[in-house]
Amino acid sequence: MRITGTFIDEISHDIAHQNWGREEWRKDFAHMQAVGIDTVILIRSGYRRFLTYPSPHLMSRFGCYEPPVDLVSMFLELADEFNMAFYFGLYDSGQYWDTGDMTGEIDANRYVVDEVWQRYGHHKSFKGWYITHEISRRTKGAIEAFSELGKHCKAISGNLPTLISPWIDGKKAVDASLGTLTKEQAVSVREHEREWAEIFDGISGAIDAVAFQDGHIDYHELDAFFSVNKALGDKYGLSCWTNAESFDRDMPIRFLPIKFEKLRLKLEAARRAGYDKAITFEFSHFMSPQSAYLQAGHLYNRYKEYIATL
Amino acid sequence: MRITGTFIDEISHDIAHQNWGREEWRKDFAHMQAVGIDTVILIRSGYRRFLTYPSPHLMSRFGCYEPPVDLVSMFLELADEFNMAFYFGLYDSGQYWDTGDMTGEIDANRYVVDEVWQRYGHHKSFKGWYITHEISRRTKGAIEAFSELGKHCKAISGNLPTLISPWIDGKKAVDASLGTLTKEQAVSVREHEREWAEIFDGISGAIDAVAFQDGHIDYHELDAFFSVNKALGDKYGLSCWTNAESFDRDMPIRFLPIKFEKLRLKLEAARRAGYDKAITFEFSHFMSPQSAYLQAGHLYNRYKEYIATL
Amino acid sequence: MRITGTFIDEISHDIAHQNWGREEWRKDFAHMQAVGIDTVILIRSGYRRFLTYPSPHLMSRFGCYEPPVDLVSMFLELADEFNMAFYFGLYDSGQYWDTGDMTGEIDANRYVVDEVWQRYGHHKSFKGWYITHEISRRTKGAIEAFSELGKHCKAISGNLPTLISPWIDGKKAVDASLGTLTKEQAVSVREHEREWAEIFDGISGAIDAVAFQDGHIDYHELDAFFSVNKALGDKYGLSCWTNAESFDRDMPIRFLPIKFEKLRLKLEAARRAGYDKAITFEFSHFMSPQSAYLQAGHLYNRYKEYIATL
Repeated sequence: MRITGTFIDEISHDIAHQNWGREEWRKDFAHMQAVGIDTVILIRSGYRRFLTYPSPHLMSRFGCYEPPVDLVSMFLELADEFNMAFYFGLYDSGQYWDTGDMTGEIDANRYVVDEVWQRYGHHKSFKGWYITHEISRRTKGAIEAFSELGKHCKAISGNLPTLISPWIDGKKAVDASLGTLTKEQAVSVREHEREWAEIFDGISGAIDAVAFQDGHIDYHELDAFFSVNKALGDKYGLSCWTNAESFDRDMPIRFLPIKFEKLRLKLEAARRAGYDKAITFEFSHFMSPQSAYLQAGHLYNRYKEYIATL
Repeated sequence: MRITGTFIDEISHDIAHQNWGREEWRKDFAHMQAVGIDTVILIRSGYRRFLTYPSPHLMSRFGCYEPPVDLVSMFLELADEFNMAFYFGLYDSGQYWDTGDMTGEIDANRYVVDEVWQRYGHHKSFKGWYITHEISRRTKGAIEAFSELGKHCKAISGNLPTLISPWIDGKKAVDASLGTLTKEQAVSVREHEREWAEIFDGISGAIDAVAFQDGHIDYHELDAFFSVNKALGDKYGLSCWTNAESFDRDMPIRFLPIKFEKLRLKLEAARRAGYDKAITFEFSHFMSPQSAYLQAGHLYNRYKEYIATL
Repeated sequence: MRITGTFIDEISHDIAHQNWGREEWRKDFAHMQAVGIDTVILIRSGYRRFLTYPSPHLMSRFGCYEPPVDLVSMFLELADEFNMAFYFGLYDSGQYWDTGDMTGEIDANRYVVDEVWQRYGHHKSFKGWYITHEISRRTKGAIEAFSELGKHCKAISGNLPTLISPWIDGKKAVDASLGTLTKEQAVSVREHEREWAEIFDGISGAIDAVAFQDGHIDYHELDAFFSVNKALGDKYGLSCWTNAESFDRDMPIRFLPIKFEKLRLKLEAARRAGYDKAITFEFSHFMSPQSAYLQAGHLYNRYKEYIATL
């Protein structure tokens, strides 16, 4: 199973910034293309006060800082140039998820979607929307938010596809800033199936594809969870992608590139489950030959050798 | 606002060592000079048993190890060569700060100052003293220690300037070795003002410049704290510098180079507040083209582009 | 004291993988040889489900994954080529150490030793066995396990030497994934001596060399612990090696290359204690010119300068 998409994590919760300029990004798109990546997904257009593009609405509504560079424009131009599909990731205010009332988050993102479609919708590479909010199990208010935002994105853009990337509440689903690597109370396959059936039912028609993050469960659990995900996707009409994490959740440094063997185990499980597409979080830190983490360049080489055998 | 000074962190509490020799250091001074740095500040000449120069006093008094290289001599020679000002950072025994009685720490440093001035005072680049002890709010015994040590430094050296670099007890003032990134009990601007008025009053005349670390508060709080700092400096006759931290306090890896956008926000706040000088902690790990953290080289390039627009 | 051996940490508990292929490994053996390394020690042949060689026994017994590359074969071929001694590290199931009953672990490793000796015993570089289980003080069941496994290794291989590398339960003996760097309850030199006398007595004849990890105690404690270790080794007929850790236990990033000065302090203490050999954990991440951690290349240079003066 080849990785054909990657997130772009320019406003990150937990990955240190590489401080690339346009020149480095242009080279990275070439590196991506050389291993078959045709889709780039902006993981979020903003988080709290930091933005990827100078949104008048968000700067006045949330006191966001004007960014030094319009990254949305830059990524779209590069995606145009490299014939890639660009998915725009929505804004995360960081203010509503704990409250259970997502009205403010939905309202803010309606503005963002309208603003962005007007500013950037003409790019030939603008091919989809990524609902940025990462949820698991029954995050309160998530179904309604995903459903409303997904429908709004599709309505304004002539039905462009919408994507989400939730996490499985497995044993490695722990806070990255804390010391522990695993927890005791992991979800079972059956609970996962029951809870996600309800979510998929609620978002069906508004969301086109779901790319579960593959790093929160153990490697020998992949087949069981993946087959449930695929069956749910088929039943509720959602494409099933895998978000093959290319960083290593098992190490005390959070986070460095993953051991190739682990990535291979995950991609092969996705292939066995009949998944529709593999994307990764994310190429530029963890798989790129020009990453600040030199292990990433070696992972790139190992991955290239691997796909040459497929 | 241009960064014109940097700390040198060769005995570090929390930044992994780069194992540079003289050749790498010489290159780094050239990289510094190329972006306008004219001042290097040795952050400490020793900490507990580790030393930057073979101090007979500290080796016999505290059982310190004889260092493989005389770094003080090397840095002074390089500063001489590159026409930079060198500030000598005092010794931190690590033994007295929790006790509230700083007598031992003051006594040890009187010896150090005398010893160092005798050994190295002839260097044309020896231009100031850095009282290495990092305090915040009303650290017990700090005023007396800063005042006595500052006066002693100035008296022996023909009134060379003295510098301190305290931290603001903001929401990011957390222990680097712990898992959390923020805390609930942060100081308010008004408490900060009241407490630092008392400190500035007590050290006035002994300390010439104060460079608050800029990384413990949120970016939208910068203006409020900086304007208070500047007003206090003006009132009590201290120069107000900013210690623009070039590492990122918001990430689980502690510590990697900061996202350029964040550094820019902090420098621009310092400019708006009318600060006198900007220094950074620190160039060689976090902004240098030859740093082991390759993100630093990209930060160097982004910073160079930025100062070209000023 | 020169470092003449290194671990190879290709199945790691806590060091992120470099994703090297055969080409990078071949270069690394050359880098090792250039500074006098004549011994490579595979730290473990497998841990839980991950393996370094495709063991039919372990894949069926423990559900291990088939590895993408036979690393044991590759390392032996490289050791043959570079005239080095290769020590094979046993398998760690991760299942028995907490139970106090090591029968399952011993049984699994009897199979592994037989299997490995049959597959790889013909290599001229196959020169010893490393009992991979890292213990300290009186780990329950350790004496019996070490004794039985050591004897089995020696019996099957014409008495090839056996090595262990335990840790001293010092102040830095803390869980790498937790936030703290030190603990209060460290072992005293006298307790260490009493407890290890019992262990050495129990493993004498089955284990030929013991290489205590040198990083869990403070630098000024090295002489006291090392002289006890050497005296115990002499008394019970075990060679006394030092495992000179080349990573830094004092920093919040776990783990990056050590400051050269610290490595030098540890090697000189081992020399003073009359140790027989110095090995390191480990060259490829922390001392290699091609390590992903660029500090390692500088450590290599500082170390080369140092050994040139011996």
